[in-house]
Amino acid sequence: MGLPRATLPETRKSAKRWEAPPSERSSDAARKFSRKHAERFRHELFELIRIPSLSGDPARAGDVKRAAEWLAAHIRALGLKSARVMPTRGHPVVYAEWLGAGKNKPTVLVYGHYDVVPAEMEDGWDTPPFEPVEKGGKIYARGATDDKGQLFIHVKALESYLETTGRAPVNVKFLLEGEEEISSPSLAPFIKSNLKLLESDVCVISDSGMPAIEKPAIGHSLRGMTYIEIEIQGPREDLHSGFWGGATHNPAHVLADILSKFYKPDNTIAVRGFYDDVVPLTPKERAMIAKAALTENQFKAATGVSAVWGDKKFTIRERLSARPTLEINGLWSGYSGPGPKTIIPASAGAKVSCRLVGDQDPDKIFRLLKKHIESLAPPTVKVKTTLLSKGKPALIPFDLPEMQAATRAYKKGWGHDAIFTRGGGSIPIVADIYNIMKIPVVMMGYGLDSDGLHSPNEHYTIEMFHRGIETAIVYLEELADLPPKKKK
Amino acid sequence: MGLPRATLPETRKSAKRWEAPPSERSSDAARKFSRKHAERFRHELFELIRIPSLSGDPARAGDVKRAAEWLAAHIRALGLKSARVMPTRGHPVVYAEWLGAGKNKPTVLVYGHYDVVPAEMEDGWDTPPFEPVEKGGKIYARGATDDKGQLFIHVKALESYLETTGRAPVNVKFLLEGEEEISSPSLAPFIKSNLKLLESDVCVISDSGMPAIEKPAIGHSLRGMTYIEIEIQGPREDLHSGFWGGATHNPAHVLADILSKFYKPDNTIAVRGFYDDVVPLTPKERAMIAKAALTENQFKAATGVSAVWGDKKFTIRERLSARPTLEINGLWSGYSGPGPKTIIPASAGAKVSCRLVGDQDPDKIFRLLKKHIESLAPPTVKVKTTLLSKGKPALIPFDLPEMQAATRAYKKGWGHDAIFTRGGGSIPIVADIYNIMKIPVVMMGYGLDSDGLHSPNEHYTIEMFHRGIETAIVYLEELADLPPKKKK
Repeated sequence: MGLPRATLPETRKSAKRWEAPPSERSSDAARKFSRKHAERFRHELFELIRIPSLSGDPARAGDVKRAAEWLAAHIRALGLKSARVMPTRGHPVVYAEWLGAGKNKPTVLVYGHYDVVPAEMEDGWDTPPFEPVEKGGKIYARGATDDKGQLFIHVKALESYLETTGRAPVNVKFLLEGEEEISSPSLAPFIKSNLKLLESDVCVISDSGMPAIEKPAIGHSLRGMTYIEIEIQGPREDLHSGFWGGATHNPAHVLADILSKFYKPDNTIAVRGFYDDVVPLTPKERAMIAKAALTENQFKAATGVSAVWGDKKFTIRERLSARPTLEINGLWSGYSGPGPKTIIPASAGAKVSCRLVGDQDPDKIFRLLKKHIESLAPPTVKVKTTLLSKGKPALIPFDLPEMQAATRAYKKGWGHDAIFTRGGGSIPIVADIYNIMKIPVVMMGYGLDSDGLHSPNEHYTIEMFHRGIETAIVYLEELADLPPKKKK
Repeated sequence: MGLPRATLPETRKSAKRWEAPPSERSSDAARKFSRKHAERFRHELFELIRIPSLSGDPARAGDVKRAAEWLAAHIRALGLKSARVMPTRGHPVVYAEWLGAGKNKPTVLVYGHYDVVPAEMEDGWDTPPFEPVEKGGKIYARGATDDKGQLFIHVKALESYLETTGRAPVNVKFLLEGEEEISSPSLAPFIKSNLKLLESDVCVISDSGMPAIEKPAIGHSLRGMTYIEIEIQGPREDLHSGFWGGATHNPAHVLADILSKFYKPDNTIAVRGFYDDVVPLTPKERAMIAKAALTENQFKAATGVSAVWGDKKFTIRERLSARPTLEINGLWSGYSGPGPKTIIPASAGAKVSCRLVGDQDPDKIFRLLKKHIESLAPPTVKVKTTLLSKGKPALIPFDLPEMQAATRAYKKGWGHDAIFTRGGGSIPIVADIYNIMKIPVVMMGYGLDSDGLHSPNEHYTIEMFHRGIETAIVYLEELADLPPKKKK
């Protein structure tokens, strides 16, 4: 089953067997093209990687722009005259479109990001982070997997069609941003201002990983968030615990009392109404999640905890991805230096955040949290609850045709069955595209979870890059084969 | 009743009426002497104040020593040839003794400290802190009330006897230290090494205040302390709350759960056995404490809290001084900077301290706290409880003859009835003297609570200084009049 490793360009002995048979589909030709030009593709990717497009460093703004210009020029050279660098409130967006498939064919929006996080030799890199090195079947460089290597897959997939059959099976639009690593502050406004330009039928994002090369995963959900800060104000200023202790309600104690009442003994969240809008897991989805089961021992090894915790009605993987959570992210009060200091703190505070799942609404959850906290606030102190940030969850049904087309693409293009997974984290841009553009977002991550993104010696497995291109090629054809939708 | 203000040296018009009648007691002559030499006494005190004996500043060690030498020389000049500077592990002790009253008379140990806390003009002083200024009946200077002005009272009381009748009614020993403001690290070892030298029948300490000049207070109790640190260790390092939230027991949550179980709903401490050794308040003592009652409104005004808290079975003043407490002094975990950060903290910690009353034992309380915490520790985390500091409470019965003698001294020498009070704070040296030397400690504070000690513009009311000398004079005579004890 599937594509054996021995058939990949860098390991095969002869190109002979890759000649197209007369009956081949256009994706076959495109795939063959991609294999023939594998080495060139990588060397082109290296040019992009060499540009240190650190979005978080104002001194590198010029490099970020240079990476955008390089990408726009590169895509333009494929024949997409529309390719251009578009300004935003921050770093620019690269936009390009190929609409040659015609109005009767779907349009795919490819999202990716060309910016990277910082990297310095001193961090522990074995080779210079912006000079890609191939070693042991991997490309070592900052951005190799996150996300330059993955976004480039889609550029090369389109090129492979255009250079063989002269056309792609669907229309393709590129939306490549330069601010993902700084939380995409300009992207939602950009999308809202360019809704007509970006109009598409489905969005595909390759900016994630899979646990192993034979275990591809399609993301169909991300958790949302409500992030609050709780502040308890007691006395006017820190008090001497000897002079005032015994008749002063200690704000740190009030905080502990409130925090201790967020959970019930069965480890479910005690906030009234919290679970009301949670879409129940179907047996079908639970079976899907079970395919990515995480054992207690694996969890303990990965985190270093001595025992797993949580709501026993759900498996570990379900708790981590398909259930909402409430976490204390930070706590502070009084004195935390070395040795003793005998004060009653004037105040105490905590940061608390909830990961939300479909169809929980971040604003409603904020109201419920606030009400819960206020109901526990004693008259001895002042309690303030502030919303720090929020984001909607994204839960895209995996039985949508565009999702199912992705499983066929993995089977044919990658060589393994893919499973659908929910991500436990929150990528606001996914929820934004889903909620603003009202189109399915299919997360086809072509990285490995072990790629070391954001760490020294980030790397990308060469085989993943080339299999990704082939899967992306097949996916476009699978989308073209879907029965036409009623036009909006 | 009592000594009218108009009779004090700085306001009286004529010294005539202070001529001793033939029937006078020796304290009368000594008091008269003290009034005649009031101005000189103050100017001598100023010399001591001018030496910036900051015990916490290594650069001022020479000044600390100079203050000790000044004091020893001054006391030697009164005829106490024994007066000397004795080395300790830190700043020196000034020791002196006058044993002329003979073995049949009691020996009083006067404790005081000649070191001060820092003071700089920039802190908000109106006049240079080490250049005493008399203004509106007050002496403004660092150390004026804490404790140079108060310890000097006893030196001048003894001088007043020696310069009039040539002898004091009791034996007097001075133990004046230079490290009180840095928690007296060398004093307990010094006492233990010099038990024979210091042997006395009663210790008197003037290093505290009274609420108003007409409300003198005698301290007979201080609270002890058990100070611990609790550390909760969860995962190996901070975790991404999106990837790991839902199956990881959050250490900050475990901490909140533990802290929330220190108190029962009636605001009593829930630690098993905690109250077992508390000496119950007698109706007599409750009546005494009621004389220093604090209203809810006074408490709110002083602290800025919106409501008083605590164990309703006791009055506010009882809660603040005669009952044990448990306070969270500090809390920390995860992220406390601005904005959101979505982590599950690897660890969480708290500083927790108990104020103890007689006869609670700090070591036993530590064991009870540790057991309580361990009984609440879930298997998902590691919990560590460490003892940071401890001190025994001091509860000296106020019906002891030496205590009752003090009330008579206030009545005669000060002009007002004194009440016995328990201090809510912890002065380890009081418990040390009481527990190591096995003698009563009588805290006769001649300051005002409003003197601003440790603050800019610390001041001492001149009238308090002179009334203090007279009260100290009378106290020595009252002690001499006590029926002789069986000798040890």
